Formats: sequence, C-alpha cells, structure tokens
Amino acid sequence: MKSLVLEPDLSLNIREIDVCEQLGPRDVRIKLHTVGICGSDVHYCMHGRIGPFVVTEPMVLGHEAAGVIVEVGALVEHLKAGDRVCMEPGIPDANSRASRLGKYNLDPRVRFWATPPVHGVLRPEVVHPASYTFKLPDSVSFAEGAMVEPLAVGMHAVAKARVKPGDKAVVLGAGPIGLVTALATLAGGCSEVMIADLIEPKLALAATLGAITPVNVGHQNLSDVVREKTDGWGADVVFECSGSTQAAACLFDVLCPGGTAVYVGMPVEPVVMDIVAAQVKEARIETVFRYAHVYDRALSLMEAGRIDVKPLITDTFRFSDSVDAFEFAKQMPATSVKVQIQMPV
Amino acid sequence: MKSLVLEPDLSLNIREIDVCEQLGPRDVRIKLHTVGICGSDVHYCMHGRIGPFVVTEPMVLGHEAAGVIVEVGALVEHLKAGDRVCMEPGIPDANSRASRLGKYNLDPRVRFWATPPVHGVLRPEVVHPASYTFKLPDSVSFAEGAMVEPLAVGMHAVAKARVKPGDKAVVLGAGPIGLVTALATLAGGCSEVMIADLIEPKLALAATLGAITPVNVGHQNLSDVVREKTDGWGADVVFECSGSTQAAACLFDVLCPGGTAVYVGMPVEPVVMDIVAAQVKEARIETVFRYAHVYDRALSLMEAGRIDVKPLITDTFRFSDSVDAFEFAKQMPATSVKVQIQMPV
Amino acid sequence: MKSLVLEPDLSLNIREIDVCEQLGPRDVRIKLHTVGICGSDVHYCMHGRIGPFVVTEPMVLGHEAAGVIVEVGALVEHLKAGDRVCMEPGIPDANSRASRLGKYNLDPRVRFWATPPVHGVLRPEVVHPASYTFKLPDSVSFAEGAMVEPLAVGMHAVAKARVKPGDKAVVLGAGPIGLVTALATLAGGCSEVMIADLIEPKLALAATLGAITPVNVGHQNLSDVVREKTDGWGADVVFECSGSTQAAACLFDVLCPGGTAVYVGMPVEPVVMDIVAAQVKEARIETVFRYAHVYDRALSLMEAGRIDVKPLITDTFRFSDSVDAFEFAKQMPATSVKVQIQMPV
Amino acid sequence: MKSLVLEPDLSLNIREIDVCEQLGPRDVRIKLHTVGICGSDVHYCMHGRIGPFVVTEPMVLGHEAAGVIVEVGALVEHLKAGDRVCMEPGIPDANSRASRLGKYNLDPRVRFWATPPVHGVLRPEVVHPASYTFKLPDSVSFAEGAMVEPLAVGMHAVAKARVKPGDKAVVLGAGPIGLVTALATLAGGCSEVMIADLIEPKLALAATLGAITPVNVGHQNLSDVVREKTDGWGADVVFECSGSTQAAACLFDVLCPGGTAVYVGMPVEPVVMDIVAAQVKEARIETVFRYAHVYDRALSLMEAGRIDVKPLITDTFRFSDSVDAFEFAKQMPATSVKVQIQMPV
Repeated sequence: MKSLVLEPDLSLNIREIDVCEQLGPRDVRIKLHTVGICGSDVHYCMHGRIGPFVVTEPMVLGHEAAGVIVEVGALVEHLKAGDRVCMEPGIPDANSRASRLGKYNLDPRVRFWATPPVHGVLRPEVVHPASYTFKLPDSVSFAEGAMVEPLAVGMHAVAKARVKPGDKAVVLGAGPIGLVTALATLAGGCSEVMIADLIEPKLALAATLGAITPVNVGHQNLSDVVREKTDGWGADVVFECSGSTQAAACLFDVLCPGGTAVYVGMPVEPVVMDIVAAQVKEARIETVFRYAHVYDRALSLMEAGRIDVKPLITDTFRFSDSVDAFEFAKQMPATSVKVQIQMPV
Repeated sequence: MKSLVLEPDLSLNIREIDVCEQLGPRDVRIKLHTVGICGSDVHYCMHGRIGPFVVTEPMVLGHEAAGVIVEVGALVEHLKAGDRVCMEPGIPDANSRASRLGKYNLDPRVRFWATPPVHGVLRPEVVHPASYTFKLPDSVSFAEGAMVEPLAVGMHAVAKARVKPGDKAVVLGAGPIGLVTALATLAGGCSEVMIADLIEPKLALAATLGAITPVNVGHQNLSDVVREKTDGWGADVVFECSGSTQAAACLFDVLCPGGTAVYVGMPVEPVVMDIVAAQVKEARIETVFRYAHVYDRALSLMEAGRIDVKPLITDTFRFSDSVDAFEFAKQMPATSVKVQIQMPV
Repeated sequence: MKSLVLEPDLSLNIREIDVCEQLGPRDVRIKLHTVGICGSDVHYCMHGRIGPFVVTEPMVLGHEAAGVIVEVGALVEHLKAGDRVCMEPGIPDANSRASRLGKYNLDPRVRFWATPPVHGVLRPEVVHPASYTFKLPDSVSFAEGAMVEPLAVGMHAVAKARVKPGDKAVVLGAGPIGLVTALATLAGGCSEVMIADLIEPKLALAATLGAITPVNVGHQNLSDVVREKTDGWGADVVFECSGSTQAAACLFDVLCPGGTAVYVGMPVEPVVMDIVAAQVKEARIETVFRYAHVYDRALSLMEAGRIDVKPLITDTFRFSDSVDAFEFAKQMPATSVKVQIQMPV
Repeated sequence: MKSLVLEPDLSLNIREIDVCEQLGPRDVRIKLHTVGICGSDVHYCMHGRIGPFVVTEPMVLGHEAAGVIVEVGALVEHLKAGDRVCMEPGIPDANSRASRLGKYNLDPRVRFWATPPVHGVLRPEVVHPASYTFKLPDSVSFAEGAMVEPLAVGMHAVAKARVKPGDKAVVLGAGPIGLVTALATLAGGCSEVMIADLIEPKLALAATLGAITPVNVGHQNLSDVVREKTDGWGADVVFECSGSTQAAACLFDVLCPGGTAVYVGMPVEPVVMDIVAAQVKEARIETVFRYAHVYDRALSLMEAGRIDVKPLITDTFRFSDSVDAFEFAKQMPATSVKVQIQMPV
C-alpha cells in the first residue's frame, strides 16, 4: 500500500508501508478518495510532536477523509459496499466512563488517526467502525465530505455555546477553524457574525460566506465594531479560533453581560486571563476538544444547503504530489484555507 | 379617536372612544401604521371571552402592531420621534417575582393589549413603555414589523426547545403559528422541518418557505415520513401548533429517544396524553406562553434575511374596511394566513 | 440452580432452572445476597405481562439486587472476587445510537432482568458486565445495596428536574418510588418536600425521613398546603410518583410559574392533561424511564450519610419463603414499603 | 445618626453623618441589628479603592446586614413593622436590559452598599426596596441573617455550577467564601467536598462542617487526594475561592472529563491559565459576580437545618468597638472567619 509516511527524522515520503487491519463484524473497509491536510498534520511534519504525542515510528498522515465502502462486516446494517462516506477519525472505547456518559471525545484511550502511534489515512484503504462512518448525501461531494471533519469542530463549538436564534457572535481568527465556526454559527441561528483577523484575503473570503462582517484588527478596533453592531450590549457569544494568546486573553471585552466565550483554537502557550473581567459579566466559558455527535448533523445541514464548505477548499493536489502539497501548506499562503489531496482512483 | 371597538354584545364598530393615556418619562407615543388580526381577536369577536377574560366593557381590538414614534418621555434614550417601531403588546410589572426572574411573560399582573379590560391598538395612537418598543431596521417594512408579534411566539418556542444545529423538526399545524414556528425552526438551526396539516393550500405555502416538507395527514402517514427522513430515529423536536387535541395527544410517536416536544398552540380542551409513550423516550415537554426577550432577535434575523415573513401576509385591508376584515378572518379561508389592517396615514 | 420461577400460567415456584451464562472478559460472576421485590415483579405475577412484554416462557423474577463477586473476567480492572456489589439490571448495547449519546436507558435493545425473555436474579448466581456492577462502601449493607435500584429512579428524576439548592418540591404518592424520590429530592438540595398520599401509615413513615411535610389528600387540600409553604408562589418542582391518572392530570395547580413537573410513576392509563394550565406557567415537563449514570452517585450519598434507605426496608423474607413474600407483597399492606428476600448463604 | 465612616484619607471614625433617605411606596425602613465585616470593607479601609471604585467622599462601611423593619411604604404587601429581616445590598434598575433578563446582579448601574459613592449600613437605619428585603424565619438569628449575604455568593456559585446529586467537589480556599461555598455545595447535593488551604485552623474548622475533607496543600498533594476520593476520575466541580492566582491557574488538574470549574474568588491579578488543559477535559468554566435570586433559598435551607452558618461567626464586637473590629479584621487571625458588629439596641 503506497502511503504518505512521516518518518521519525521528519522526512516525508510516499512509500510502501504495512498497515495490518482486520475487518471486524461491526467494521467497514473504505477506499480513500479525498484527504484534507490539517494544521496538526503540518505540525507533526515540522516538529515531530504535539504535546505528549511524539512521532517515534514511521506514521501515515491525514485524518480528514472521505471515500467509498468496499467491504462491510457481518453485523453492519446501515452501510453497504459502494456507499460514499466520510469518517470520524477518532475511535473511542465504547465501554469507557467518558463514552458511556456520551462524551466519547473525552475518552483518554481514544485512538485518533495520524496521532502517534495511530496511522492516518493518506493511503489506499482503511478499516473503520461502521458507527463512526457516515453516508454522504448525493449532493455532497467527496471533497466536501472530507471537510466534515474540520466543520465538525465548529459545529461542536456552536452546540456547546448553546447558541439561541438571533444571537450575535464574534469569531476570533479567520483560518480554517475560524471559517468553519463562522459557517456553523450562522447555520446555528446567529443573525450576525463578526470575524476578526489580520490577513486581508482570509477576511475577504469570510465576507463572501454569509451575514459575516470582516474586521481587520490591524487597523480596525473590534470593540468599536461590536459595540455598534450590538447597540452597545456586546456579543452573545465569542469563539476563540485563532489560538493566539493575545486574542484568547482579551475576549471578554467584546462579550455581553451573561455571554458565552468558547475556546475552540488551542493556544500554544498558557494564556494570561483577566478573570475579573469575565466575572463582572458572569461569562460562561466553554472549552472544546474535537467533537462528538455532530457528523450526521453537519451532513444534513450541508444537504439542506445551509452550510456550503466549497469556498474553503482553496487548493487541491494529486496524491502523487502530496509531498508538494505539504510543502505548500507549510508556507501558509494568505489565500489558502484548506488544502486537499485526491487519492488515485 | 376613531377606533375599532368590540362591544359587550359582540357587535363591532369603528367609532370614537376615549382611551385616556398619559406619557410617562419612560414611555413613547406611537402613531399606529399596521395592525395584524390574531386568532384571539377573532375569538373575542365570536365568543366574547377567552377563559377568564370576558368582554364586559367596550374594548378596542388588535395587538400585532407597528407604527411611528411621535413623542418620547423625558428619560427615553434609545428611541426618538420619527423612529419606525414595533411593540410587545404585554406590559408586565417590572417588580413582580416573575419579572425579576426574567420571565416577565409569566407575570400574572401583565397588562396585554386587547385582553379585557385592556384596550388594543386598532386606533390612531398608543402610549407604550420604551422598554417594550423596538426600532425596525430600514429593510423591515411596517407590515413585516406587525408580524414580529406572532413570529415571536415561534422564536420563543424554538428558544425553549433549545434547538441544536442540524436538528430535525416536526411542526404540527400550518396555520399562522405553525408557519412562523417553521420559519423560526429553520432560522434556529434545524436542517429539516416536516409540517403537517390537512389543508392543502397552507401546506403548499409552507413548502415555499425553505427546507420544509409538507405532509398532508389526510392521506399521508406522518410517522412514515418522519421515519424515512430521520433514518428511523425520529424527530429531535416536535412543535404542536395546531391546538388540536388529537395532534397534541399523539406527538410522541414521531419523537426520537431523548427528544423534545413543545406545546405552542393552546388546545381548546384537555388533552388525553399517553404519558408512558413519552416516558419510554424520556421526552422533555416544554410549554410556551407568549414570549419574552425575542423581539430584538426576531428583528435581527429578519434584517439579516434569515427570516422572511412577507409570504405569510396574505390579505391587507384599509382601516375603514376593518369590520369587513374581521368578517373575512372569521371565515378562515384556506388560502389566507395573516390578515392585516393599515391605519390611515 | 434453585431459582424463583414465574411460569407462563402465573404459578410461582422455587425450582431448578437452567440459566446458561458464560463469563466474558469484561464480566463478573456474582453470588446473590439480597433481592428486593419491585411492583413490576408483582405485576408480572398477577397479570403475566407489562405492555408488550409477555411471560411466554418460565422466567426467574427479581431485579433489585446485591451480592458478592465470586469470579471476574480477564479484562476487569476495578473489581475483584470478594467485593460486595450491587448491579444495574439493564444491559444496553454500547454501540446503539442511544447508548453513544449517553442515554443507554433509552436503548430499545436493552436487556433488563425479569423482563421477558430475560431472567431475573432470584437465583444463586448471575454473570453481569463489570461496567454495570458497583462496589458497595463498607458502611452500606447488602439490604441497602439492593435498594439502590429503586433509589436510582428517584435520583434520576431529581437530576432530570435539575433541582437547585433551596427549591421546594411536591411528591405525589408515598409508595416506594415516592419515598425514594423524596429522599433524593432532599439530598439534591430541596429545602422542603411536601408528600401527598391517602394512606396514613405511608405518610407517617415519610414524615420521619427528613424535612418532609405529609399531606393526606383524603382530608387536606394540597394546594392550600403548597400555597402556605411557598408564600403563594407554588412549588418549584412536582414529582408525579403515584401513577394515578388524577394526580398526573392536576399537578400544574401546585406548580410555580416557570416550574418543572416530572412524571416518574407510570400511569396505567392515558392521562387527561390540561395543557393550557401548564402553558400559562410555562411548565417544563420531564419524563423519566428507569435511570442512567446514577448508581455511583446514590452509593456515595448513602456512604456520606446523606440518604438513608433503611427505614424503607419494612419486610424481609428468606429465599425459602419467597413465594410467601410475593403473596405478602400482592396484598400491599399499608405499613409495608419494600419487601426484600435474602438468598441462602 | 452615628455611623462608622471611612474618610478619603482612610481614617475610620464613628461619627455623625447625614444620609438623606426618603421612604418610597415600595420601600421599607430598617433599624440595623447586626452587620458583618466583608473583605471588601477591609480592602477599602486599607487601600481606599477597589478597581474603578474610589473613596473620594466620606463613606459609611458595611453591607452584610440584618435588622428590624420600623416603617413600610404604602404599596408594600409582604412585610410589616416589627419583621426581622436581612437585605440584599445591591439595588439594580429594574428596567435595565440585564435586570429584565433576570440577571440583575449584572446591571452596570446597580447601587451597592459600601461601594463608592453609595453608603453602607454601619449606621442606625436604612431605607431599602421591599423587593430586596427578606423576612428571617423564627429560627434564624440576626447574626445568621447577616451571614446570608456571604452565603448567597456560595449558593449562587453552586446554582451556576448546576451541581447534580452525588457530585464530588473541590473548594480551593477555606476563608469565609470558601467555607460558605462548601456549605452550599453540600446543601446542593454533593456527597463529598475536599477543601484546600494552607492555614490549619481554617481547615480544622472546615472539617467540622459536614462531609468535608480538609487538604493542607502545604504538605498534602491535592491531586492525590482527589484521585483517591474519586477512583481516579476527578472532581465533578471545582470552586476557586482563594483568589490566589496559582490556585486559579491549576484547577483543571483535579477536574474530571466534562467537569465544571467555577471562579468565585476574585484574583487580584490576571491568571496564567492552561487553556489546553481545560480543553482536553472540555471543562465548562463559570464565573460568578455576587448573586441573584438566592436569598430566599438560603433562608429556607437555614430554616430547614440544612445549612448552619453559626460556626463561621467567630468574632463579635459592639458597634462602639467597631474601629477595633476593623483593626482585628485587618490582621486576618488564622482562627477568625467572620467578624460581626452588633448595633446598639
């Protein structure tokens, strides 16, 4: 199986690698079609680790994926060979305490694609539990299907925020996660989203996605914009999607009394937070780790035409060019949001 | 002041009536522009009472209203003469226990327009608290402004249901309340709404309003439709908007495990409910009484183009023809949803 | 294995029956010590069915149980032979949609002890998943351990009600479920519980359990009592535990505006409900089906001395007298709450 | 009126001061009986300011108070002269946006006793809105009544945390706010509270208050204690009551997956927070500012014997010794929790 393999010395090659997988009775085997590149993939390429997860053995990259089912286990009922699908990349232990509570994303024993020592899916095939495999509606392409994974983060953030119809939201950061969160926020009932970033092309893209006001914090004052758009009351919800420690620290300024802040992005360093600024507004602060129970919801909103992720897919490479694709992604071009790789047919 | 007055003998006349109102420091005076006819107005015309509220003195009808501010009290800050506005028709006691808890709609001492002994607003002018008066966005017409009152019921129902993005909903009844609830449900994040009724023109109108599947329960089986649209799981939320006791009794059939039923419509008689059918799904049942805290939210969603109430305004009369308008409304024509009356300029 | 077997002809015998059970790697084998008799056990004895569940084959009765572990599967970590335990009687499919959402009690494929065709545990031993087996604290006896099952219903009802500290509650019905709900309600933060019944000895027992006001609705007016105890505001929460259709229908009278009603008991017939009475208070209505995620919580409150179920264990029989125990339970003596059977050592 | 007055030069005197107050129709006049000293009172004495609030004019101190009604306004219904009462020290504008939402504690225009320029109540009499004045049950003394104010902070924190019966909690800090939070946490349904501090006498006092495990973090490892007490899962709720930036920063270590952290204490400096540590557990973080809607709840739990604040009242002074009382409070003796001042009869 030719796969895209990251070596412990951080070199990246398309090469044969043996990934031994048995099809269990509740599993499906999927031929991969499209795989997106996530910031974490790039981070492993550059640094060889994320927190406690270290690349000590060769590892296949990629966890944002869509494909076609080629084989199903004996007990699988809702899927069949030929179905076009996308997949949740994390496989929890269904019997863990967290899973039983319905919070399978918090199971510390979850096995997550392209997180050492678990292989990702930039390879021809993968065996996966049917429970975490979702049929694509006819109107949703493989490329869009591979976008469900990042979109799921935004969907989960909006569900955690408990957005109410007519809420006004601020999204800090117009990268891939900021943009999918903005889309989810609008789909979830917000009447107005203000999105803040420093990179003009990303803001320009954001402005095309719906009732979204771009705010270039390089020369605009976000607090002023929020004050004007909310009659001075503040935003009902603020989503921190930049991972910037400055952004994460100051978000209570633009929040309304009794409002909600959601930390979606993962700041690379601890954040200096003004707790008293949060307290005088009795801010509720939600934190988000991946997602749970949102794939089918994301797909149904895409099918209904309520969320359109196509404008975020800015760059597509063939699998044979996937090393180039990663080089491109490392540069983080201002006009690029999501880079995807198409597997050989 | 020429007003539309319902007499205790149930005759209806345009005539002079003295409604004495003083402008307090926190009040505004509004010249009425458009007033919608609600089912409760028609009910008072036909029966002279709703529950404990009996028409024993002449009463001006109408509580769905928009107009222009002509005078403001000394302490009013956010409104000025010339502002186009719509108004919440209920005025609670801000110091009541319910109001202090934020549930002003549940204050038993609320004074509500066109509910005996409080006059409605089918008259030239009204004095109203600025707190319950909302500025219309430029893009929202007076006719749409007068629709905010019924829309608020649907918005409140969706907020109470705590709809999550990608929920699938059923709305029972395609009358005015069913239709505004369907609009609010979509705006609030549902990916799919199935609306059930017996009257074909209402269903046909519903089908034009968005991702709404009309179900004529005269010849279609609602359970079958829901099963198909939800992969057999059931609807996440069911809104009972028909006021029909049969509908109110059977809604647990189409609900998913752990789902939510909301009683929006007021059934005229007690409902025979299969509690065990609700229990085996652990249904949460919310009940709705008018609305609170949603006017500004409804307006912002209308301004953002996320809710369009114009298709529901099917019939418009001049004030001089308002007795005819009520005769028309009493007939409940199959193609009529909302009847509005335009006041003299 | 000598077991208490209900035959399809409704005769009840202690006799040999072959219950074939294999110990899986995540299972434990438990020697039963104490088993309580539930209303559903008695109902099967008398009527041979509950809803769709019909006794067509011989079935061992009993599902409220505590015992000692005698063997553990290879993957069991948190339990060992010799541990004193109690068990959740329902075994869900961990991969069902309901289970993955954390609502395993709503899994339609749950296998529940003493619900046809699943055998109960009035027998020497049982094999059970370790995940649904809970170690008893040293201070909790086997008899108390066997009470965790009914207590769990009350605990779950209180969790669903989202009781806040200082809430005032009404419990309708002072049978076993009413009494455990009253205990859970107090433990969950209520400052005052009013419990209503017609049977004086049950009310007298209730009054000994804490800050509980007994109300004999045969000669006292519950509404008057609630009005006096709540300064006219109404109860924050009402728990319907009587299964009586009259009680289930009228509970909104004693509820405060914005209050919560919880249907815990299962009324044998549909309930005629005054929806409008619920709506004018915007009552939230929760329904309860068994329980989920509360066994460990119940045990920790018992260990902390915050819940004492011992006064509810009114009658204890030896296993050899278990047919007599069921005859006794069928009579429903006014002074009996919970009948338990002790298995042979 | 002889009052305890803090001068802008930070000198403290008992002297005459003219506090002009008119009794409105919804007000009551209260003769003060007992007034507690709060940390904020002491802070004003020592520093002359808290954040933006600066003592620029002479100001009467004290806001934790109980007394006797001596006069009632014309519209007051639920109180009468002679009633023993305690009072919420903050008076919001009932028409503000925050108040209408039921969050009157977040109204930026709230007038709060002993917060410049509003006088406190270490004086003979005060006029106060009846809505924020609460009758003491017969069994609750004036000294306990004056403790309701600090207790309300803990009650509000527990309500915000949405404690469920059987939760296990950690309280960081065993000062007055930590101790009232621990009491509220137990009353609110927690089965186990671990309280952490460095000062042994405070921990020793805590240990006498209920199912509370004292943890001296000077020589004990809190994480180890929590791990043992929760079978390795972590605490369901952590209340930060120390105001210590170290404590505020590290509380996610002891939290369970999906758990809740509540910032009750106000850290004097910004906190360096490990957001990723919160994210991997999807911690919900609530922040608390004073309280709302809890006085009556606190009183009912005190009346029911569920909360006993008497052990926290460690030191009582006569009003004539109130300057000494403040000197004593400034020293923060290890064995002192709450200092109260009794007004002249």
